[in-house]
Amino acid sequence: MVPHLITALTGPINELEQRVLESMPAIERWFRLEWMEHTPPFYSSVDLRNAGYKLAPVDTNLFPGGFNHLTPDMLPLAVQAAMAAIEKICPEAKNLLLVPENDIRNSFYLSNLATLVRIFSQAGLNVRLGSLDPTVTGPTELSLADGSALTLEPLLRTRGRVGLKGFDPCTVLLNNALSAGVPRSIEHLHEQYLLPPLHAGWPSRRKSQHFKAYEEVAKKFSKLLGMDSWLINPMFIPLQSADFSAGQGLEALQTQVDAVLSKTRRKYKEYGIQEKPFVVIKPDAGTYGAGVLTVRDAKELPELMQRSAWGRGPDGASAHQIVVQEGVVTHERVHDAVAEPVVYMMDRYVVGGFYRVHAERGVDENLHAPGASFVPLAFSQASQLPRPGEKPGVSAPNRFYMYGVIARLGMLAASYELEVTDPEAEVYA
Amino acid sequence: MVPHLITALTGPINELEQRVLESMPAIERWFRLEWMEHTPPFYSSVDLRNAGYKLAPVDTNLFPGGFNHLTPDMLPLAVQAAMAAIEKICPEAKNLLLVPENDIRNSFYLSNLATLVRIFSQAGLNVRLGSLDPTVTGPTELSLADGSALTLEPLLRTRGRVGLKGFDPCTVLLNNALSAGVPRSIEHLHEQYLLPPLHAGWPSRRKSQHFKAYEEVAKKFSKLLGMDSWLINPMFIPLQSADFSAGQGLEALQTQVDAVLSKTRRKYKEYGIQEKPFVVIKPDAGTYGAGVLTVRDAKELPELMQRSAWGRGPDGASAHQIVVQEGVVTHERVHDAVAEPVVYMMDRYVVGGFYRVHAERGVDENLHAPGASFVPLAFSQASQLPRPGEKPGVSAPNRFYMYGVIARLGMLAASYELEVTDPEAEVYA
Repeated sequence: MVPHLITALTGPINELEQRVLESMPAIERWFRLEWMEHTPPFYSSVDLRNAGYKLAPVDTNLFPGGFNHLTPDMLPLAVQAAMAAIEKICPEAKNLLLVPENDIRNSFYLSNLATLVRIFSQAGLNVRLGSLDPTVTGPTELSLADGSALTLEPLLRTRGRVGLKGFDPCTVLLNNALSAGVPRSIEHLHEQYLLPPLHAGWPSRRKSQHFKAYEEVAKKFSKLLGMDSWLINPMFIPLQSADFSAGQGLEALQTQVDAVLSKTRRKYKEYGIQEKPFVVIKPDAGTYGAGVLTVRDAKELPELMQRSAWGRGPDGASAHQIVVQEGVVTHERVHDAVAEPVVYMMDRYVVGGFYRVHAERGVDENLHAPGASFVPLAFSQASQLPRPGEKPGVSAPNRFYMYGVIARLGMLAASYELEVTDPEAEVYA
Repeated sequence: MVPHLITALTGPINELEQRVLESMPAIERWFRLEWMEHTPPFYSSVDLRNAGYKLAPVDTNLFPGGFNHLTPDMLPLAVQAAMAAIEKICPEAKNLLLVPENDIRNSFYLSNLATLVRIFSQAGLNVRLGSLDPTVTGPTELSLADGSALTLEPLLRTRGRVGLKGFDPCTVLLNNALSAGVPRSIEHLHEQYLLPPLHAGWPSRRKSQHFKAYEEVAKKFSKLLGMDSWLINPMFIPLQSADFSAGQGLEALQTQVDAVLSKTRRKYKEYGIQEKPFVVIKPDAGTYGAGVLTVRDAKELPELMQRSAWGRGPDGASAHQIVVQEGVVTHERVHDAVAEPVVYMMDRYVVGGFYRVHAERGVDENLHAPGASFVPLAFSQASQLPRPGEKPGVSAPNRFYMYGVIARLGMLAASYELEVTDPEAEVYA
């Protein structure tokens, strides 16, 4: 059941694990106090990279689409967390409208939707699916691989509310990152709870905002544990308003790449790390790892950009604002293939996770790409519960506890980020 | 892993299961609304009896002592529920003082304590054990079967607080039903959270109060589901101030036994049940199933009382107030032995359960007795999550979901009961 997992067993990460385990009650209390001040995202998933010498979140997704990859053993945790989340937001809730991505032909994604329907039904809600896709004009039955079916219905917008024919929800749950923009049908829903809020969608969200918030969180947490925050935080520099299509901006970008590379080199030297530093360049807005470039030398940039058609086409449009981030290799393998852990959370609780595995990608490449496969994290046997007293690095439960801690830091950063970027918050400022 | 379980597969219980499954979102919402008005006990366990024609809680324990019998797979649920409970009561909590039963030489009970320590540590608290036993005068190490150890320390009472040497808790968690009375050292702790409250202990608690509250809960719930509340509620009559030692009161008791037996007979006739009705006579106060008598005919009473030394001795002292309750047989077996499900809850969440199995007891006898053994409920595989669409009575997850629902009704009744009996509530009334 447990995948054969080769995890990074040496170096600073084991010291970090040791410290995280020893500080468990303090860490959990720290989170508890943070959640008194900040509202956790309704749900989230965080991609982690474990390099052996550092462990860091590299992506925080506020519209997680892989609930089907969690082991079924973890579902009771998700149901319990969903109950807690609903109790806080809208305890009298009866109906939940789930709004999926427009393109739902992917059978994995359908299975994700079926899992979400199951979780929220069992948490005590009538769940129905409403589509933002204008081509969905009547109830549409979608068949799943296991023989079951889901029904997708067109949204009905009335003055202050959105629903379906004969279905008036008190809460609308988006499982759609709104990459194509915010449709009018879900704007200004002042009478309903819309989760996550619209400004969590990619039209508004900026990775640089998230990384900035994460830096703050990582520093606070590292202070609590008395450690260098670099061990859990990749350095980054946001670069604004560069127009690569016109050939400009390249020089500025090369300077930033050099700056991040030499900062990383210094850190590697400090820790005696025998690796070649690299950076990843990401568009500040956008999802699905689109347009992520791995760069080891600023001189390679012109060729790399040409080869990847970067700065042009649909991704190019959003590439005017970019982020240069310290690259973190993943030194984890599942059956010889490069792997990175992905942790799923609902409300403030870790509810499961899986390894994203890619046989054709390198340790320094983005694994969120076609060809990836998924192996549920060995969260089964009692599982993410740490076992104090075991030697660091040898116990899967202990490693997974640490993953859950770092993933929750990513989630907390998203909470900070959404507070800062909330367009309605300024009204009360 | 899953015990070979023979459960009652026919009759009204399957219709009830069907109705419970179909109404799942409505049921969960109903509980959510109830918990807006009422505070769940911090933790609880409920003993159930499944007779095939009816399913009912027969005992609701507010100081559950069998956390060690839960399957380890369920621990993450308990940790998550503990986090939710603490967040509500005292989010800034750092230290938790756990007060065990005085007699802790039982290795099963020690293992229960170790499990509780593990759960609350992982929920983010420093947990230490403080004893009410006056013979514990210094730190005492207790060895567990698995080679680990717990340290028991004497309580230190200062003006408004209780703690240990060098340990000032914000919350005191009783795992001691206070059967021997309320010690002064934990009275009037106005500066700390004492959980459960003192009036949940046996010196104050009365089964008749609980059954009355349960009757109210069962009627509300049955209205929601449009069913006869008798299917989940055993009839009862409380009898007060009978002095059996003086030979009085016997006649009144016989009248009550007859009354309950003939009411039960009428119900059996209505449902076509081919069983011989019986009643159980319980002391209104008291725990551990002490002094529970099974009676099939009021005429047997004098002999039965004589034989069981009932009405005399330590249990006799509390037997002046007794309850006559409709008996519910258990038609469940684990490996040929009579079994009854026990459901564990923390805050408002089901966190696991087990079968209490007794090879030497009959279907109409109390199984809470020396010689009982325990089999974790097959709550493992995704587990207490119901599977809609499956034929009633054939799916363990569906049966366990129903058990979780009925157990939560028992817990809700305890919540009603503690509100009514709260000595401090009257101050504000």
